[in-house]
Amino acid sequence: MIAEIITIGDEILIGQTIDTNSAWMGSELNKIGVDVHQISSVRDDRSHILDALDLAKGRAQLVLITGGLGPTKDDITKHTLCDYFETRLVRHEVVLKKIETYFSDRGREMLEVNRQQADLPESCEVLINEQGTASGMWFEKDGVVFVSMPGVPYEMKGLMTNHVMPRVKQKFQTPEIFYRTVLTQGKGESFLAEMIADWETKLRNEGLALAYLPSPGIVKLRISAKNIEGGKDRVLTYIEELKQQIPDLIYGYEKDQFPELIGQALRKKSATLGTAESCTGGFLAHELTSVSGSSDYYMGSIVSYANRIKQDELNVPEDLFIKHGAVSEEVVTAMVQGIRNRFKVDYAIATSGIMGPNGGSEKKPVGTVWVAVGGPNGIMTQRFQFGNHRNRNVVLTSVNAFHMLLKQIQED
Amino acid sequence: MIAEIITIGDEILIGQTIDTNSAWMGSELNKIGVDVHQISSVRDDRSHILDALDLAKGRAQLVLITGGLGPTKDDITKHTLCDYFETRLVRHEVVLKKIETYFSDRGREMLEVNRQQADLPESCEVLINEQGTASGMWFEKDGVVFVSMPGVPYEMKGLMTNHVMPRVKQKFQTPEIFYRTVLTQGKGESFLAEMIADWETKLRNEGLALAYLPSPGIVKLRISAKNIEGGKDRVLTYIEELKQQIPDLIYGYEKDQFPELIGQALRKKSATLGTAESCTGGFLAHELTSVSGSSDYYMGSIVSYANRIKQDELNVPEDLFIKHGAVSEEVVTAMVQGIRNRFKVDYAIATSGIMGPNGGSEKKPVGTVWVAVGGPNGIMTQRFQFGNHRNRNVVLTSVNAFHMLLKQIQED
Repeated sequence: MIAEIITIGDEILIGQTIDTNSAWMGSELNKIGVDVHQISSVRDDRSHILDALDLAKGRAQLVLITGGLGPTKDDITKHTLCDYFETRLVRHEVVLKKIETYFSDRGREMLEVNRQQADLPESCEVLINEQGTASGMWFEKDGVVFVSMPGVPYEMKGLMTNHVMPRVKQKFQTPEIFYRTVLTQGKGESFLAEMIADWETKLRNEGLALAYLPSPGIVKLRISAKNIEGGKDRVLTYIEELKQQIPDLIYGYEKDQFPELIGQALRKKSATLGTAESCTGGFLAHELTSVSGSSDYYMGSIVSYANRIKQDELNVPEDLFIKHGAVSEEVVTAMVQGIRNRFKVDYAIATSGIMGPNGGSEKKPVGTVWVAVGGPNGIMTQRFQFGNHRNRNVVLTSVNAFHMLLKQIQED
Repeated sequence: MIAEIITIGDEILIGQTIDTNSAWMGSELNKIGVDVHQISSVRDDRSHILDALDLAKGRAQLVLITGGLGPTKDDITKHTLCDYFETRLVRHEVVLKKIETYFSDRGREMLEVNRQQADLPESCEVLINEQGTASGMWFEKDGVVFVSMPGVPYEMKGLMTNHVMPRVKQKFQTPEIFYRTVLTQGKGESFLAEMIADWETKLRNEGLALAYLPSPGIVKLRISAKNIEGGKDRVLTYIEELKQQIPDLIYGYEKDQFPELIGQALRKKSATLGTAESCTGGFLAHELTSVSGSSDYYMGSIVSYANRIKQDELNVPEDLFIKHGAVSEEVVTAMVQGIRNRFKVDYAIATSGIMGPNGGSEKKPVGTVWVAVGGPNGIMTQRFQFGNHRNRNVVLTSVNAFHMLLKQIQED
């Protein structure tokens, strides 16, 4: 069962809008075992849209179309759909009533362009849009289903969830699919692949699939079983095997994120956390406070970007800077002790490094980072060597520091 | 001059990755007058890639390809390119040296899959990737240019900026385009459009173009002249007119960003800065330290997420919390005074707000934010009312706070 996605709109092609709809639709379809073969973004242009529809028709049984239905663009897309499906626009009274209510509810004046949104292709099945005024349209041609939806993300999601997905499951024999995602941190994609090569081969030989999904500092492993009897059990069994092989690298599953996991671990122990940040410059705090309610366990951070602040606020002895430099195991250790005493917190993270592009030296090149994590049972430190990309180094430091902290909390 | 973009990678089609590369490339090409006709995302599949290349070749003179070059995927895309361009892989010694240095610099073990990244199509012009190990490849076939780049955004951007864009300008007759971007902060797109409606009409009547590029808290105005005689002077004249009309809203030009502008303004006065953050939770510090060398003027931040920290570290009197609450003009004012004394800095920003989704009240709904900016000549405070989206509220607070600070430094 193959699907394609077509997004219509010049704003995407000139880069004013990032197409987030397609990724969302792709993952929804993927979950019910529908393969998205291609995503095509095309102009608000009649012949271009017609070509795209025809090419997709030759490759897929389901074509999802978003965009090009706003009141200001209405005509091109809708008239083009009428041409392609050899039908005409007729005023749809039910939809017109909904649009009128939509405007009267908001006390907004209704213009002719809004009224025209009730003019819809005669041959399509109209899908009512609960979130807006542009309706969804379900067409069938030569056994291929085409669905046109507005590009406004929450309107599209509403139509997909309430109308399109249920109809797709019903109409097409969607396969039995089961998948789980294992989140790993600490090894790069290629190195990890070598570590689990045998496991992967065994898994593939059983007909299961494995996908590597890397992001800075993190590699997600997606294991799936499609139309395999007992697929769920097999996937879970392989995950258990994987846990035995790389226990130190696995930090979570599915949509887990470090700030949430750390929050849950701290709540379990009703413990508190503080951070002392030099090279991460507040990014640890920003990430940790992205969780609503984090003020229950996260007290805050001293971003000691200047050495003077490290001394005054974190009581890092001046001679450590002279003897070892600000980027050293000794200094991050003192920073962790400093913040734990100062903020009276159970756990703490301290970071110090050379993020670049400038500031590197022979012994400490750009990308050199020291991280210390402290808790009731002591302090753990680690040195990292990252690259030359400043923002990436900040992200890599935080991901590694969070993993160090999470392990320490869980082990205590 | 027509271009197309092809992104290769199952991760995009299953919705695990949002394709942000295409939007960036689209806007870069748009600036030099190259129209992107279509963006196609295809599978890591030989025949599918071949079809996509051939279709694009029939529609465009330039085809930019990203993705499919990671060490674990290497083979499909590179071998497919070899087939399409009727060439073979040969080990590229210069690239191999670079990859070896890349790994030795990071003290990381080099695997065969990494070494294989130096095997590149014989007939292509290799574009050196300064940020990673997957090279760019420039092919020509029947007068159409194809460029293959890795999908890692900062690697792709490096290759585009240093190699692809200059070559494209040189090879194709790109139209005479002059454009300038004016950066505004403080008014929404539609409100701003009303303020400058007459100016815009006059500008358009002269054949100039205006684009509104909104992002949270900011609206960028791009004024461009395409193939117009004396276009540069006309654009600059209109910008001078605009400065007269909305002086308080304009904070910069082109690629200016608040952290850099604030740094420059502080250096001019050889003044220092510190921040006391509650609701922004370290984001101000993270933004300010994204500038290399910011430690010269930015001393750091106290992220006082808990009220206890506001009292202990910033000496905010306890009764202020009782009388006015943590989110109040009185508390942010005390926070600014606290951080200025504590860090002995010339300028300071303090933030306190309810970022949501929880924690709102009748008098202080979610999105209520107080910002204080302090300098040698006094303290300025402002109350903002944002929406329900937590991360968006953090960004909006920082953008507005930075603009308040920048004005204060410049006026002092």
